[in-house]
Amino acid sequence: MSQLEARRIVLASRPKGKPTTENFRTETVLLSSPSPGEVLVKALYLSVDPYMRGRMSESKSYVPPYEIGGVVGGGAVAEVVESNDDRLQPGDIVSGQFGWQTYAIVPAKHLRKIDPALAPITASLGLLGVTGLTAYFGLVDICKPQRNETVVVSGAAGAVGMTVGQIAKILGCRVVGVAGSDEKVRYLTEQLGFDEAINYKTAENMTRALKHACPNGIDVYFDNVGGDISDAAFRNLNTGARISVCGQIALYNLEQPDVGPRLLTPILIHRALVKGFIITDYADRFPEGVQQLAKWYRDGQLKFEETIAEGFDQTVEAFLGLFTGANLGKQIVRV
Amino acid sequence: MSQLEARRIVLASRPKGKPTTENFRTETVLLSSPSPGEVLVKALYLSVDPYMRGRMSESKSYVPPYEIGGVVGGGAVAEVVESNDDRLQPGDIVSGQFGWQTYAIVPAKHLRKIDPALAPITASLGLLGVTGLTAYFGLVDICKPQRNETVVVSGAAGAVGMTVGQIAKILGCRVVGVAGSDEKVRYLTEQLGFDEAINYKTAENMTRALKHACPNGIDVYFDNVGGDISDAAFRNLNTGARISVCGQIALYNLEQPDVGPRLLTPILIHRALVKGFIITDYADRFPEGVQQLAKWYRDGQLKFEETIAEGFDQTVEAFLGLFTGANLGKQIVRV
Repeated sequence: MSQLEARRIVLASRPKGKPTTENFRTETVLLSSPSPGEVLVKALYLSVDPYMRGRMSESKSYVPPYEIGGVVGGGAVAEVVESNDDRLQPGDIVSGQFGWQTYAIVPAKHLRKIDPALAPITASLGLLGVTGLTAYFGLVDICKPQRNETVVVSGAAGAVGMTVGQIAKILGCRVVGVAGSDEKVRYLTEQLGFDEAINYKTAENMTRALKHACPNGIDVYFDNVGGDISDAAFRNLNTGARISVCGQIALYNLEQPDVGPRLLTPILIHRALVKGFIITDYADRFPEGVQQLAKWYRDGQLKFEETIAEGFDQTVEAFLGLFTGANLGKQIVRV
Repeated sequence: MSQLEARRIVLASRPKGKPTTENFRTETVLLSSPSPGEVLVKALYLSVDPYMRGRMSESKSYVPPYEIGGVVGGGAVAEVVESNDDRLQPGDIVSGQFGWQTYAIVPAKHLRKIDPALAPITASLGLLGVTGLTAYFGLVDICKPQRNETVVVSGAAGAVGMTVGQIAKILGCRVVGVAGSDEKVRYLTEQLGFDEAINYKTAENMTRALKHACPNGIDVYFDNVGGDISDAAFRNLNTGARISVCGQIALYNLEQPDVGPRLLTPILIHRALVKGFIITDYADRFPEGVQQLAKWYRDGQLKFEETIAEGFDQTVEAFLGLFTGANLGKQIVRV
């Protein structure tokens, strides 16, 4: 069997603060045939996600660090080119975690076959994948939103945030999103049914802006960003508020420990519950989540937005854009 | 019926920052006989507690503010002098919430009769009252400590803290207390069975001191104090840590909003649960708590320490002493 040229993006160095293109390197490798139990796949779509920033640091985080010189790992959708395992055939569409490479040889058991008739195949990277499951369990299991409660979502125009807001609407809540442009704010209120949305970049005072948008206070806060926006949310909590800590993208690239108003006092005063989580905590309940999300999607209650970068060469730029808010919804790369 | 002179301490003005004697005033009032359904009681012991500081401020807190000119409310143990209700007879020992006064006329239904044979009558202010219940539910229900886990308690020589630590020991945990003097540290380890205790006033670096005392990290943190001590605890959390926010005494008297390291990042990284609470959240489970605490007390597994100030005139000083750590265990006043 002839050899195949594959391109892959590896971590060249660990970012200090904001990542740059210098932290990555593209390599070409030659792949031969898959061994027994393996398949050769051709990547179709790659996922770029904020959590990957955490894995680029050496320090202990909630996910293990990438190795220097190793392929940047993450979700991907691919087509099987050659199979040495009975479970998969050439032409099958699969999803897996093989990361930023154009071709890969992967154990078949690490891949999940996708039915393209059910939903767009990229949904496995988003609504029916880690993104949707994160929104679903982080909101429903941790925050237990009740009808007519007020739910605030930060990073609301990101893939997780917009899913959280839509689920909260399905559950009968008043939903307020915080996002970083007027265009995103309009999208959230006009396309996704958010009751209100706030552009944090132009709001004069986030505490007052949230107070105005949440006249009955905040019962549930789903936090993707941290920093000043979260400080403002904590100043508007109701008694018994629940806060899901899903991400802290505002802080990922800081080089110095950040300080802010102490939060244990409002947590005490409002008898609030705050819970950090990672979606793998819910691994044994994934089928329940996928089933519910797919049902809402089929019923037209849940929309799903993607920003697609064209070409493998755009992968690093697409990743860096996450930290400037360039994306609307799930950022993926078409290989 | 002749009239009776009663002395009472009222809130003269709201403290700004640390309370002083100037914020209080002693008044003498004349009491007549109790109306139907009421009893006249003679106070024997008064409770002074950190949470009272919150009620002296006007701002929204987790308990309603005292009124200017009103009696400072709080728990007390008293003897019935005259009764106009079938439920209580002169000589009965009762506990209630009538606050800082030498005599009071109180609705009988607001009093609970105490059996002096069961435990010292002051236990109803401490181990078998709000203090013990706060320790029990805040630890057992929120933190769910498991055998061999490491539990850290701040304000460990306070009434709640020492009860938390002892319960954690009963449950098979490694227990580390943080307190404010070498004498308290010795008391915790030598008398109450804490595995280790740290004097935060002499520790060079609390983060390192906790790391040293908790070689396996912190699974449960029961927080009575907030501030720097809590910051240090958050730097030593294990994955899946649970934090009960019971008090923030280090911050009660601050006049300016305090800042510190942002805590949502460690909460996310360690997938921690943080919950603020007030004991009245558990009102419907008080009988369960009292029963368990009384059983441990009878079995000799749970000790109970009091610092007793002698004389009604010492009430304000005893209260102010809470903020300098003058007390060991439950601070009460013998009238």
